[in-house]
This record gives sequence, C-alpha cells and structure tokens, in this order.
Amino acid sequence: MPGSNVTQKLISSHLVDGQMRPGEEIALHVDQTLTQDATGTLVMQELLALGLDRARTELSVQYVDHNLLQADERNAEDHLFLYSACRRFGLWYSKPGNGVSHPTHMQRFGIPGRTLVGSDSHTCAAGSLGMLAIGVGGLDVAMAMAGQPLRLRMPEIWGVQLTGRLRPWTSAKDVILEMLRRHGVSGGRDRIIEYHGPGLATLTAMDRHVIANMGAELGATATVFPADDAVYRFLTAEGRADDFVELPADRDAEYDLHDHVDLSALEPLIAKPSSPGNVVPVREVAGTPVGQVVVGSSANPGLRDFAVVAAVVAGRQTDPAVSFDVNPTSRQTLADLTAIGATLDLIKAGARIHQAGCLGCIGMGQAPAVGSNSLRTFPRNFPGRSGTAEDLVWLCSPETAAAAALTGHITDPRDLAADLGLDYPTPRLPERSSICDDMFVPPLPAEDAARVDLVRGPNISELPDLDPLPDQIHAPVLLKVGDDVSTDEISPAGARALPFRSNIPKLAEFTFTPIDAGYPGRAGATHVVVGGENYGQGSSREHAAIAPRLLGLRVVVAKSFARIHWQNLANFGVLPLVFVDGADFDRIDQGDVLAFEGLHHTLTTSTELTVRNHTTGRQYRLRHWLSPRQVRAVLAGGQIPLLATAGAS
Amino acid sequence: MPGSNVTQKLISSHLVDGQMRPGEEIALHVDQTLTQDATGTLVMQELLALGLDRARTELSVQYVDHNLLQADERNAEDHLFLYSACRRFGLWYSKPGNGVSHPTHMQRFGIPGRTLVGSDSHTCAAGSLGMLAIGVGGLDVAMAMAGQPLRLRMPEIWGVQLTGRLRPWTSAKDVILEMLRRHGVSGGRDRIIEYHGPGLATLTAMDRHVIANMGAELGATATVFPADDAVYRFLTAEGRADDFVELPADRDAEYDLHDHVDLSALEPLIAKPSSPGNVVPVREVAGTPVGQVVVGSSANPGLRDFAVVAAVVAGRQTDPAVSFDVNPTSRQTLADLTAIGATLDLIKAGARIHQAGCLGCIGMGQAPAVGSNSLRTFPRNFPGRSGTAEDLVWLCSPETAAAAALTGHITDPRDLAADLGLDYPTPRLPERSSICDDMFVPPLPAEDAARVDLVRGPNISELPDLDPLPDQIHAPVLLKVGDDVSTDEISPAGARALPFRSNIPKLAEFTFTPIDAGYPGRAGATHVVVGGENYGQGSSREHAAIAPRLLGLRVVVAKSFARIHWQNLANFGVLPLVFVDGADFDRIDQGDVLAFEGLHHTLTTSTELTVRNHTTGRQYRLRHWLSPRQVRAVLAGGQIPLLATAGAS
Repeated sequence: MPGSNVTQKLISSHLVDGQMRPGEEIALHVDQTLTQDATGTLVMQELLALGLDRARTELSVQYVDHNLLQADERNAEDHLFLYSACRRFGLWYSKPGNGVSHPTHMQRFGIPGRTLVGSDSHTCAAGSLGMLAIGVGGLDVAMAMAGQPLRLRMPEIWGVQLTGRLRPWTSAKDVILEMLRRHGVSGGRDRIIEYHGPGLATLTAMDRHVIANMGAELGATATVFPADDAVYRFLTAEGRADDFVELPADRDAEYDLHDHVDLSALEPLIAKPSSPGNVVPVREVAGTPVGQVVVGSSANPGLRDFAVVAAVVAGRQTDPAVSFDVNPTSRQTLADLTAIGATLDLIKAGARIHQAGCLGCIGMGQAPAVGSNSLRTFPRNFPGRSGTAEDLVWLCSPETAAAAALTGHITDPRDLAADLGLDYPTPRLPERSSICDDMFVPPLPAEDAARVDLVRGPNISELPDLDPLPDQIHAPVLLKVGDDVSTDEISPAGARALPFRSNIPKLAEFTFTPIDAGYPGRAGATHVVVGGENYGQGSSREHAAIAPRLLGLRVVVAKSFARIHWQNLANFGVLPLVFVDGADFDRIDQGDVLAFEGLHHTLTTSTELTVRNHTTGRQYRLRHWLSPRQVRAVLAGGQIPLLATAGAS
Repeated sequence: MPGSNVTQKLISSHLVDGQMRPGEEIALHVDQTLTQDATGTLVMQELLALGLDRARTELSVQYVDHNLLQADERNAEDHLFLYSACRRFGLWYSKPGNGVSHPTHMQRFGIPGRTLVGSDSHTCAAGSLGMLAIGVGGLDVAMAMAGQPLRLRMPEIWGVQLTGRLRPWTSAKDVILEMLRRHGVSGGRDRIIEYHGPGLATLTAMDRHVIANMGAELGATATVFPADDAVYRFLTAEGRADDFVELPADRDAEYDLHDHVDLSALEPLIAKPSSPGNVVPVREVAGTPVGQVVVGSSANPGLRDFAVVAAVVAGRQTDPAVSFDVNPTSRQTLADLTAIGATLDLIKAGARIHQAGCLGCIGMGQAPAVGSNSLRTFPRNFPGRSGTAEDLVWLCSPETAAAAALTGHITDPRDLAADLGLDYPTPRLPERSSICDDMFVPPLPAEDAARVDLVRGPNISELPDLDPLPDQIHAPVLLKVGDDVSTDEISPAGARALPFRSNIPKLAEFTFTPIDAGYPGRAGATHVVVGGENYGQGSSREHAAIAPRLLGLRVVVAKSFARIHWQNLANFGVLPLVFVDGADFDRIDQGDVLAFEGLHHTLTTSTELTVRNHTTGRQYRLRHWLSPRQVRAVLAGGQIPLLATAGAS
C-alpha cells in the first residue's frame, strides 16, 4: 500500500462518514469556520433558523471586509448585527478595517492539519498552511458551526510537481496564472490540487497563499500544501510557533492526476479581460494604455507583495494619467509596511492608500471608466465585477502592476528593469510581524452570551419561507445562458447591490441583471434556467441561489455546475440537473416550456430522468448528482425546511 | 483718517469697481481660483459655454477630493473629463488622492495678499494666510477664470480680538465652536471676520486655517488673518519662504463691529446634532455612547491635528464598539504623519486609515447607523449630510474625538487625561514638510492646450437651456420650508446623488428629497418656494439653483438668504425675494398660488414689489437686494443667456 499525500492525511483524519473514493459523498469533521460580512449576515440568520445556542467548532471567526463603503446606514447596521450575533453565538469578531479574512485568518488562526470551511470561495487560501480549507455556501458553514460535518463528493487529488526557482520579476502570481493558462476556469473542478516537489522549498507560506487562493479560479475544491519549514517560519514570525504541526506527504505518496511546473521557465503572465482563464504572457500585450493600477487583495496579500511594489516605485513618480491604488490587506500588513518605510515610499510615488479590506476586488469602489484598462493584482475579473458594466480588468502580479503604474501602459517588468537599470528588489522583511490582534473581539463567555440580544436594523430581513418542490413542474425557460456564468452575474455584488445583502427581497431585484436586465421583471412564477458549462463559478454567495428561488426558480439545467453553487442550489431547494447529452443544450430555446413529471418518485429512486419540451415536443435525458441527503433537502424545499420537518417529527 | 485693517488692504488693492461701503456692490480682481470635482464638472461646462480659450488668472487649480468612492464608472469618467478640461484650459490638476483642496492649496499655492475665489464654501480657509478667499458658485469661478472681476456686496468688517493662550486639551476648533456658540449659523452673514490681537501670536497658520475654514458655518463672506511671523514660518516649512509678503493690520485699524475671545477661558466644546450652531461644553454631554469617531477633513487638516490624536491613542486600544476612522487630508500630510511615526501609532491603536479626501464629510461613505452617535472633527453636521437620513453627528476637536475613541462615549479630554495620568501632547513636527507636489499635473503650454479634446463620458450632460423670466408669474408655492435650510437639503450630495453631479436632469430627481420626497414628482411646471431665515446655507454647490430651476422653480421668497446660494439663484435666473415684513411668512401656506405682475418693469426700476396671494387674497410687500447687473441676469434667464445675448448683439 502506497504512502499518503497531504490531502489524504487531512481527509482521513477528519473523515466522519463515507469512503475516500472520488465521486462518493464523504462527511468531514470541521475544526474552524470563517464567514465574511457579504455572506455572514445570512449565516447568522441561518444560525437563528437552526436554533443554535453556541458555536460547537474549535474556532469560528466573523470578518468584516467586503462592504466598507458605508454609503448609507445599511452598512453600519449590518456591522452592528454581525457584532451582536458574534457575541450571542460565541464567535470571534474581526472589526471593519482589520483586514481581508483570508490572510488575516492565516496570520492569526490558521493551524496545520486542521479543517476550515468558510462562506467565501477563497477560503481555500488557507491550504498554504497545510490545512484542508474549503469555500462553501453560508448554510454549510452554519451547519458546521452547529456541529454537523461537511458533506461533499470526494474529489480527485491532483499532484502538481514544482521544480526550479522563480526568476527575477516573476512571482507566485505567475505560477497560478500559468495553471490557469493551461487548464482554464474549470480545470480544477472536482479536484483538490496538491503541490509537491523540490520547488516548494523556494516558496514562502505567503507565496503559497497566492497560489492556493486562486485555486478557486480553477474551480478546485481545495488547494493543499504540506506543512513544512516554510510554514514553521511563517508561524514563528506570527508568534505562533507552538501551533506548528509538521504535515508532509509521504515519500511514496501517489496522486490521481499529475502535472508539473518548472518555476524557472515562467515569465510574467497576465489575464486579459474578462476571465481569470484568459492568460497570456505580458510581453504579448505590452504597450496597452492603462488608466488604473490596483495592488492588494486576497490574491496578493503579503507584506512582500506590497514591499516589492514600493521598492520598484520608490523615488519615482507614477504616470500622471494613472490612478495608483494600494489596498492594504490587513491592518497588520499596513503596520509592517509602514514600519519598514515602504508605505512612505508608496505615498511619495503617488499611491492612494486605502483602508484595509476587499474594496474594488468585490466592486466596492475603485470602478474604472468605460474603455479604460485597469490592471489589478486581484483574483477575478468577471465582466462587471469591478462596478463598471463594460469594464476592462486585467489580473497580474505585483511586479507587473508596479511597472504599469510607472509607465502608464502594460509593461513586462523585465523591460522596465532594463530601461531603468533596476535590480530585482528583495525587500528585507521583519523576522517577526507586528502582530496587531486587538481588532479581533473575542467570544463572550457562554453565560454572558446567552443574555445578548441581536441588533436587527430595518435592512436585516428574515430568511424567506421555502415551500416543497412540486411533484410536477410545467414551467418556461425564463433565461438561457452560456458557459462560465459566474455568481457575480447571477447575483451581483458591487456598490449598488451589496448593501442589500441582508435583505433578500430587495436583493432579488438585481438577479441576473448583468446578463439580462429584464429577468427580475419577467420572473415571479415558477420557472427554469438553462446554463452551459461551469454554471455558477466564482463567489460562494448563496444569495445566487436564494434570490432567484424567491423569484420562482425551481430547476436549473446545465452542461455542468461549479461545485459551491451546485451545493447552494440544493441547499435552497432548487433542483440542479445536467444534460446527459450536452448537445441537447442547443435544442432548447429561451421561452420553451419544460414539463417535469413525477419528480418525487424519480429523484428518490434514480439519478436519471426525462423531461419533455412542451413547446417543441422533444425529450431530453437529464441526470442529477445529488446524494440521497441532498435529494431530501431539494424535495423539502431546502435544507432549513428539511431540518424543521425533522425537528417537528 | 484711521489706519486700515487687513481686509481693507486686501479689498482696496483689488478693487476694480465700487465703493468700500457696506451693502454696496464692489468688483474685485481675482488672482487665483480653485474648483473641486463636485462643483468643477459644471464649471468646465460653463467655461465651454463662455467660450473661454485659456484661464486668465495667475493660477487656477482643479482638485479631485469630493467623490472618491468610484462606486461605478461615472466617477472615473468625471475624473477623465476634468483632467482633459484642465489640459484644455490651462489649469493645474490635482489628482484623486492628492488631498482636500483647502489645506492642499494653502500648502502649495496660497500667497499672502492675493485674492482667491473657489467653488467650495470652505475656500475661506485660505484667509489663514492673509488672503482674501471667498467661496462662490461655480459660474462666478468660471467668470473669474475668464478674467471677470468678482462682484459682491461690500460686507461689514468684524474685528475679533484674541487674547490669552489656549489651555491644554483645547485647540483651534474650540475657538470657532465658541464663535458658533455665541453667534449661530448666520451670525457672520454679510460680514468678513478679521482676527487680531495678542492671542494671534499663539496660533499657527494651520490653527488659523481651522478657524477660517468654519467661518463658512457662521455664514461669513470671508475670514481674514494677518500675514505675520506664523505665516512666514508656515511658508518656510513648505519651501516657499519667497512667497511670503507681510500683511499686518495698521496699529490704529478700525472695524465696523467688535468681539473678543479670551483663549485662556475656552473649554472643550462640541456641536450637537444636527447644526454647527448647536454648541455646548463637552462636559454637559459627557457619557453619551459613541459608535464612530472620525478625524480629518478640511476643518482639522493639519499634521498637528492628527499627531495629537495619535499621541493620545498611542499604545492604547480604541473601544471595541467604536469605528475609529482617520481621513488624511492630503498625501503630504499622510507622508509627514508616517515619517514621524504617528501613522503607525494610529494603525496599532485600531484606526481605519482611509485615502486622502473629503470622504464622509460630504457623505461619501462612512455613514453611521441610525441612532448611533458619530463624533467628527468635520465642519458640518446638517441633517442627513452623513448619508444616513436620521443621523446623529457631532462636531468637535481632535482632542475630544480621540478621547471618545478610547472610552466609547463622549468624554471631556481633560477627564481622560486625569484618568490616564496623561500630559497634553505637544508632538514634535518636522520643521520642513515633505512637500509632495508630484500629484499636481501642471498646465499644458498654450500651443499644446489648444489641441486637447475634452473627454466627455455618457454621464456628462450639457448645461440646460435657460429661458427668460416671464413678466407675469401665477404659480403655486410648491414647497414651504423653515429656517436654516442648507443646500445639502435642497440638492443632496452623498453616495446616491453625487455621482450625478455632471448630469443635471438626473440630479434634479433628488431635489429637496431630504425635506420632501414628493417635491420632484410635484414639480415640472413654474412654481415658487417659500423659505425662512438663512435660506440656502452651507455648500456653494450651484446644483441647488440649477436643479430646481430645471424643475420649474422661478421665484424663492424667504426671510433671508445665505450669500452664496442667493448669488447662485440670480446666476441661474431664479428670482430671490425677501419679505419686508417677516411675519408674512406665517401668512402663506404651501399650495397657495402667488401672482407676480409686471416683473420686468418693477425689477428694473425698484427694489420693492407687491405680490398677491391668489388663494387667500392677501398681498405681501417683498424686496430684492439684486444689483442692476444681477437684475439683468435674472430677467435674461441667468448669467449665461445674458452673456450670450450680449455676445450676439
């Protein structure tokens, strides 16, 4: 019997139910959870619906990082609600301005060998520490807090061997952009990516965070790195050497799939508008004019990432036509950056230093002008996610971003270096971080917590009631969409919509509007949506399931689904089905009426069903991948009505 | 003949027309102008309407400081438009993130003895340098750029003698709050406040900026300080000693009115919600719980103001329930603050460090929760200006703000000092500032400028056409409002409305909505608005004249007007009239129809007129304070149609 890889060790040590065979449903014990404000207000309402008294996890943290604009009172009311819920349920509260959840969690709470689930698709970043970290919908986090295991289909384990060493002017971002160049935005679906090999030793824990974070863009279930010396050094710098647990792959570990990246062979890469999978070498697009450069975000959160940029621009001035925006990922990162003098270099070079948070990465400010190219070190550039409908957002490394800030056009940083006679900076970073943890408000003791009342402002709506799935559905295809539709297009975030994240009826008015402004007006009665490949990629927001459900969506038929959204649909009683023959996609038109019959019996007894197109007379074979548990949830109208029924019976 | 005060020297050296007798119209040569983005996009359109080729002032600067949220593309499009207009018309462009116009202008461009007009009501802050600096509507700035003198009624000159020295834990903000406590929000109307006396020597130029800035809250036309040693030290620190010109009052200078403030007698003061005139000692409201503390803004912009706060909170933690927001007023201030280590102290104490700009002061973010007290070092707390309709905003000094940030409730900073054994901090400031001026883009040479095309995005509308004033108006009183209505209530800024500042038809939909949500729906045809005292106080935005004009407003009858708004109404063809008998205000109801007859003859030949209330049969005597020039503009439909007619004839 061969040795185990890191992923297998993580799964087997947390396996509560099921077999570790790809495709089979497994149940994993959850040690830690994280939620953020955009998804967290629903999670808190779900905890209420579940009747939870106090979180049963080792650690649960609520971050406030997504909506910091506070354009009106709704935002501050969300913060008060979340703060009161944290006090009520025994959670840590990370105050607005403390930082982006993923790097902040890594710095303060991440522990090798533990499992973490989070209601944010980039939760996977914690794989950098040798954790099994999985982004899921809010209800799955709420259930984990209630002590339930996480259920998912066992993914394939994809070993990616790293060799060599990154050359000057390339960095970790180029590694993950290379993976996206090769495999596209659904290349990691139903897979856990595990990096191994001699190249690992050249990457710090924070470099690995960059790579693990954007595993979400490949559609991967998780990304896993071993817990080795790099992790020990990281935890030591954070004053948490005691939390270190070594977790290597066995020498004779095997993987289901294989790939290899020679770090020495990478060059600066960039994702063109408007997909993270649209990757080309920077040199191919050099010279394109740039109106905005933004550094920061969960995808390039480390002190090094900012310090390199500062070293490149130090003593120089950014181009007059460029807005050069610096988004510190955490208060601690900004403190460290300031202590080493790099903040001052950035300010003097013309940077706009913003508060710590997600900001423009989630469309909360920093929207570019139409037709103006924006280069960002962010993880995503889905159409319109920036807040500008016809945006031109590019994704790149800090090095490439810094070069464009100085020149005003896309520039291979190696060319900039040659022009300026610039050596590749290797900033001296402090051996010990400043460890700013005072903006984490710790959980209240249980006896005090029980007396806390939730502060529920007028914008905090109740969860909607969800009725059971009808046995028979005759309903129109109200919308037909293509491949790779993201949850940003199903339920947009951004400055207009995100303030309503706690108010589902109001938020529902934005459903699908980036694709079809008429959808909310047409919706209201029972209907079907038809999608292409990788339907629902991107953000974990369960609003993308609940909001259309509120408008009458009961069935989505697609070529394939992104994992988290598929699970969210099932959690909220929307039936996700795939075409047995993908070519049938072309045989359905928007407006056709589909007739589903005998759903209760069929779903319970089979994974296949047939649906008739009432308009054309055609029939299609469809299948579902739902577990018996998920089928029960869909039939009941969702996970919460199912639990309520179970509780009542 | 007595000697001259500073104001008289400034006026006489710039007098182009008229006599320096209070109430008479004078015309002043304008040396410098400033515009900001919220008002500047209209100014640039007015320059187009005026047919300007190139600014004729010594110096004109366009700042981008008000709307930095960039919630969607409109904001970035405004920036592109402004940048192109600066290049076209020979203006300096201060990039987004460079800082708030007033302190930034003072640091880089202010010169004693010069005149400055700006399309921002706090332009008066430059009086701190011995300038005559006056906030006006955008069209007056545009005309100044076109080489026209500024016309205004000669104000009374109000000498305020300062004696003594501020005691620990009081600062310049308490001086202007004391003036507001004594005289209220219209106490300075038709006056220029000139500070003199031995107490002056204890105030730095930036302290004087604090006092001059909030002269706007008294309704004063300007605030003037002498150019003395303090100004010399300031300019020297800014590397501009050569710009210093001594400008003292003569020893035997006289003033029209007198007041006296003993600095030694002041205690910490605070303006309660929701008026800057609602001032009480901090100790009277101590203990009130606080949810948010914000430091920064044009009213407390200096390095000292931030450094004192940093010194108070250094090594301590802000209250868990408080959001502690720090708004650096300029890039240079943030650079200096960072260089002396104070930024790091603030970050470690739990501050959210924001980009440099106006931010929450103009309702662009930082909106508090309903029912939650917000303490701010800002100049204004008009109802709803924060972005929250039912807000509770208090105005105070940096010292008082810092104390509340630590304790979580309103705290007299002297009590905090006693509790903590804290000495009053006197931060060591650098003798020379960092002088960050690279984010100012200088004017293009004329030959290059002529070739620049304006970049006009879809949100940049044209100025509306304005028709002449009818000779006879029979129209309803569509709205009747009380005293001290601010332009924030007539044409709200904030995150919802401000993005439409360049799009008057769209902006008009927000007109008067903070007072009466039904107004835009009722409006559309010719109508009248009736107001109380000090109608149109606050911001200089001419949108508050143009937007209701577009909806049919032709006459405002009030007990009295704030200066800038009164001038803006005349500029855009709305007739501003006052009651001869203020008691008649109570004899008109909303909905009454007023009948004005023979307006052309009456306005040209008399300052009084009679109007009949068609509904009740009553008659009212009204008068106007318009100069013959202003009467011609009102009759023509506004200043621009008047100039067009003159140009065509």
